[in-house]
Amino acid sequence: MTEACPVDLIDAAVVLADISAAITLKWFRADPEVALKADSTPVSAADREAERAMRDEITRRFPAHGILGEEFGDERTDAEYVWALDPIDGTKSFVTGRPLFGTLVALARAGRPLLGIVDLPAIGDRWIGAAGHRTTLRGKAARTRRCAGLDGALLSATSPGMFSGPDRSAFERLQAAVLYTVWGSDCFAYGQVASGWLDLVVEASLDTHDFMAIAPVVTGAGGVMTDWEGRPLTLESGGRVVASGDAALHRKVLAALAG
Amino acid sequence: MTEACPVDLIDAAVVLADISAAITLKWFRADPEVALKADSTPVSAADREAERAMRDEITRRFPAHGILGEEFGDERTDAEYVWALDPIDGTKSFVTGRPLFGTLVALARAGRPLLGIVDLPAIGDRWIGAAGHRTTLRGKAARTRRCAGLDGALLSATSPGMFSGPDRSAFERLQAAVLYTVWGSDCFAYGQVASGWLDLVVEASLDTHDFMAIAPVVTGAGGVMTDWEGRPLTLESGGRVVASGDAALHRKVLAALAG
Repeated sequence: MTEACPVDLIDAAVVLADISAAITLKWFRADPEVALKADSTPVSAADREAERAMRDEITRRFPAHGILGEEFGDERTDAEYVWALDPIDGTKSFVTGRPLFGTLVALARAGRPLLGIVDLPAIGDRWIGAAGHRTTLRGKAARTRRCAGLDGALLSATSPGMFSGPDRSAFERLQAAVLYTVWGSDCFAYGQVASGWLDLVVEASLDTHDFMAIAPVVTGAGGVMTDWEGRPLTLESGGRVVASGDAALHRKVLAALAG
Repeated sequence: MTEACPVDLIDAAVVLADISAAITLKWFRADPEVALKADSTPVSAADREAERAMRDEITRRFPAHGILGEEFGDERTDAEYVWALDPIDGTKSFVTGRPLFGTLVALARAGRPLLGIVDLPAIGDRWIGAAGHRTTLRGKAARTRRCAGLDGALLSATSPGMFSGPDRSAFERLQAAVLYTVWGSDCFAYGQVASGWLDLVVEASLDTHDFMAIAPVVTGAGGVMTDWEGRPLTLESGGRVVASGDAALHRKVLAALAG
């Protein structure tokens, strides 16, 4: 068992999420100058401005801490504490006026997730998860729901396009076994699992700065989150993740994905 | 050109949307008793209560008008004016705590769309479209954007599961030609087109009470909405629809779908 996350670190993460929210909401639906990355993922000026502001705040408060971020690269990743930032997860939502984009703020200690925030600034949902603390949504305790059987499970994934080759076959096998699949939620889906509204999220191309924030939210609500092989997530994990509200269900999902 | 929709009918439709919103928001995230239909589509008590309340209001105001609704069947469908109601479009969103569900209120005259409301009560977005009037979002004029080429177009559809057989191949052909696809938005996606945030929605299993509300919103914002063969939508149309922000793009989409 990891030691409990100090409250002052949680408070600092909340400040970072607030800083990011003020910036992203200023740009949301405001016809931002949208640039296209080489990989065709849209990203806006909001993304850069919010990451810059969060980095400045981290450096001011915790000059020894490391930082991982998409826009301005990685700093001091060998530090004991490393922050991982994603101001706009769900950039396709953001640039199409859809309020399901989220901000992800994570802190890892010695490479393992210590705290995470999944914030949906445009709809007011904020999940906070930290080692040794119960996950909250809008300040109230969040709990996953029991659902031990695949045939009753509600599954979510952002896009069928994230699965290819054998991963695609594995995902389709799982899809055939569950009750139904909801598409297109990005990080919001993991909050849904934490709040007991959804049973499963299975994805195949998450970035480190995404799942490091999500894992504490899911596990602090009573859920389980690992890679497709059942290993705990660390800064070294690949992007194939499973988040389940119910531990018995999680084992069945891993078995279904393994074939 | 259809004659302009009388303002008192628009006002009545707004009252219906307000009635529905008060009921659906009471049940949203409130752990409603969720029933499963035979086809596995989840539906809640909110759906029935809201449709009942809207029907009562229509009958009180316009006893001669017809009504189409999912929960309580069809009445007087041979009337000159026929309302089409769907209190919860996006039931999968609704039962998983995702605020993207919408309420659809439509009025057809002589079988053709006269006015429609796409209301997202949980996020406060309401699009109102009516023949002879400019579509509005939150009371302000909504306009589609210009995007004449498939290669720059953002496409949306609710789920890959709605396409099967030749429709699936046709959709995948279109997907390969556009910039990217966003999944999982239900009726909200058509509002995105009306507001110029998205270029295209292509779906294959819409119900009459859905597209009758959506068509006036899209066309009143400068867009085009037809079936996959390019025919105008009527009460008799099937559920294969294309909504485009740009007329030139619309023609290219129809050609791509035709193969």
